Amino acid sequence: MNAAILSIGDELVLGQNLDTNAQYLSRHLVSIGCHVVRHQTVGDDERAIHSAIDCARSVADVILITGGLGPTADDLTRHAIASVMKVELKLDSAWLDHVRAFFAGLGREMPESNRIQAMIPEGAKLIWNHNGTAAGIRATLNGSATGGASTASSDSRKVELFAMPGVPKEMKLMLERDVLPVLAKMSGGRTIASRALHSFGAGESTVAELLGDLMKRDRNPTVGTTVSSGIVTIRINARAEHPDAARKSLADTESAVRAKLGDLIWGSDDQTLPEVVADLLRHGLADTIQADEGTEATTVSTAESCTGGLLAQYLTSVPGSSTYFHQGWVTYTNLSKTMCLNVDPHIIERNGAVSEPTVRAMAEQARALADSDIGIAISGIAGPGGATHDKPVGTVFIALAAPRHTVARRFVFPGDRATIRDRAAKTALAMLRFHLIDRPMPF
Amino acid sequence: MNAAILSIGDELVLGQNLDTNAQYLSRHLVSIGCHVVRHQTVGDDERAIHSAIDCARSVADVILITGGLGPTADDLTRHAIASVMKVELKLDSAWLDHVRAFFAGLGREMPESNRIQAMIPEGAKLIWNHNGTAAGIRATLNGSATGGASTASSDSRKVELFAMPGVPKEMKLMLERDVLPVLAKMSGGRTIASRALHSFGAGESTVAELLGDLMKRDRNPTVGTTVSSGIVTIRINARAEHPDAARKSLADTESAVRAKLGDLIWGSDDQTLPEVVADLLRHGLADTIQADEGTEATTVSTAESCTGGLLAQYLTSVPGSSTYFHQGWVTYTNLSKTMCLNVDPHIIERNGAVSEPTVRAMAEQARALADSDIGIAISGIAGPGGATHDKPVGTVFIALAAPRHTVARRFVFPGDRATIRDRAAKTALAMLRFHLIDRPMPF
Repeated sequence: MNAAILSIGDELVLGQNLDTNAQYLSRHLVSIGCHVVRHQTVGDDERAIHSAIDCARSVADVILITGGLGPTADDLTRHAIASVMKVELKLDSAWLDHVRAFFAGLGREMPESNRIQAMIPEGAKLIWNHNGTAAGIRATLNGSATGGASTASSDSRKVELFAMPGVPKEMKLMLERDVLPVLAKMSGGRTIASRALHSFGAGESTVAELLGDLMKRDRNPTVGTTVSSGIVTIRINARAEHPDAARKSLADTESAVRAKLGDLIWGSDDQTLPEVVADLLRHGLADTIQADEGTEATTVSTAESCTGGLLAQYLTSVPGSSTYFHQGWVTYTNLSKTMCLNVDPHIIERNGAVSEPTVRAMAEQARALADSDIGIAISGIAGPGGATHDKPVGTVFIALAAPRHTVARRFVFPGDRATIRDRAAKTALAMLRFHLIDRPMPF
Repeated sequence: MNAAILSIGDELVLGQNLDTNAQYLSRHLVSIGCHVVRHQTVGDDERAIHSAIDCARSVADVILITGGLGPTADDLTRHAIASVMKVELKLDSAWLDHVRAFFAGLGREMPESNRIQAMIPEGAKLIWNHNGTAAGIRATLNGSATGGASTASSDSRKVELFAMPGVPKEMKLMLERDVLPVLAKMSGGRTIASRALHSFGAGESTVAELLGDLMKRDRNPTVGTTVSSGIVTIRINARAEHPDAARKSLADTESAVRAKLGDLIWGSDDQTLPEVVADLLRHGLADTIQADEGTEATTVSTAESCTGGLLAQYLTSVPGSSTYFHQGWVTYTNLSKTMCLNVDPHIIERNGAVSEPTVRAMAEQARALADSDIGIAISGIAGPGGATHDKPVGTVFIALAAPRHTVARRFVFPGDRATIRDRAAKTALAMLRFHLIDRPMPF
């Protein structure tokens, strides 16, 4: 069953408001097995709404509309639907009484402009709004603009249209109560099971090469990638007639993806990288016998130069982070590295602040001074200034000091200042993760 | 000049990601006088993209596309454009060399899959991407699907198409450098002058009440508000036949807005709050006689508890921040506050870690230990745990220690953990700004 989503409003096409309704509706349609083929947004213009409905009904079996059901002159969704149906608007007196009673309850008389909210196209059904005065509209259309008028050869497909208010709170309740149950019945079983797997450390094209044929377009389940702030996410969508079959084929493909990407994958669905690292710090490896809720957390301290506190901020973004994070330093100058962290000034003099020996000393001193299990340090050139011949902008050294050894790595991150700082902090989190799961870094 | 915006991506129609590009593009198109007639979103499907372009070119003079230009098999925007143009893809060897050189700079070989990113439809122009490997595409289409093939009676209108990457950072730079200047010239004459004024410290509805009649819908220039991460932005758009008239009426309305909001406004257009504070630290007040490029910067140090380094991260997000920021502490536990910052343990014992005396001592100690002009400290309850009877989640104390006095304030911020941390760090920046401009805080 194909679905199209229409959002109506000048504030949306002008970019004054962000359309979050379309995403919300998409997620719910996907969850009941609908195939969402498009979103479309038009302004408060009857002809534009009419043409958008025409466009949608030619490709979709279901059209969900939000917005344009208010009481003011620029609310034109009901008029556009009537014009598509080639009918007049007629009064729903039960809803008019309800709106009048609503205003009476507030001790006010209903403004005359609200009367239009009780007018719906002839032949359509009114959908009760339990949160406001904008009632919804349900109508059945022909599958194409000429479907009704022409001969037997034309598109005789029927399209179900649901118009809902644009106010998210009103739309959500109406969707759940009166729209989704109908659609679930219409879609008759066919469902989608989805999973997002998150990776870090390899670019999108490298991930795609590793996945190979799994990303073929005509495959079911489908496997696609998206990238956001250095995190490459692999999205798997499995379609099947029955939920069990969808879940089974999803699980098979997930195993195949995990086999290809191995340790690059650090989490799934709503998990964030700091959360995954926090879990490892608090509980150790979940699937080892040593794991025990009673075990004391592994503690970590930070010493940051070019990231200016971003690593500490990531580590403390998780509720309850005080169990594993006690102390961090932002040592932005050479003097602060020697004064606050007791880094030997000769090390900085000989090697520079952005160097492996300096970042090793920073990590070891942070660990010792904070009396933590692990110390992590970052020093680099976030730019735009500060580059030298052999240390271009993006050069970052990261060190991790553990009880028995200290490891340090040199990286060169591409991008602007904010990107370099973000990648450096995320790479430090990734180094911490690989240390905690006792695996070599695959990048 | 009518414009249509197309967003491409399965992750968008499936509702897995929120489309923010369309809003961003709309705002910029509106600012140069374009009339945005629709947004449309389709999945990674060549036929769907083709049909969306057909739909768009029948109503728009300009089509802006984002997404589907990546290196993987599900990136099909270039193929769809070629199919609309009825041409083949051809190699742009200059771009291929550039992408190869980009990977070489990272010490890696270019994955073979990236080659497709140098293929563009014959007759189209490549748009350089200064932030990534997905080049843009510029093409000229006929105004309707049959426009090229049929007779003189058909639509001979030309439509300009610009395809840009879906990654916001890459799209934004390309839009600004290579797309908007072309469109501004095309839209010719009727102009819009725009300004965004940024405020912090008052909610959107309070700002709206202060602005009063200035926000009336039928006014020219129009005045609207949007809110993002606690920053309320006031957008002014002035329409006129001539640029001078637009600029004049914009300036008048800007003065009126500034008169209503006063010190709540901290900056305009592309400025960020950390940048504005950084400028004040480096140069003092720009409009006073004391301001002098040769003056030494005011230095600041930080001691953070609940914000975990976020304030230091904001302060160091500005290039060249080492002139005013040398040192920061993330003291997450009581012990670290006494051990690293030498806060008297009796102060914490008597008043608690989240208290005015503790945060005062933290700020004064940070200032003294870092030998900086100003010390700022934050201690609070970011939640979800940790609340007490008289200190609910969101309670945050912020102190600013200056040479002659220390000020401290108690705030209660609404929202979740991330929101509370962000508001606390931004409020600390705002306190610093009011101290530097020597004005009382208006909130």
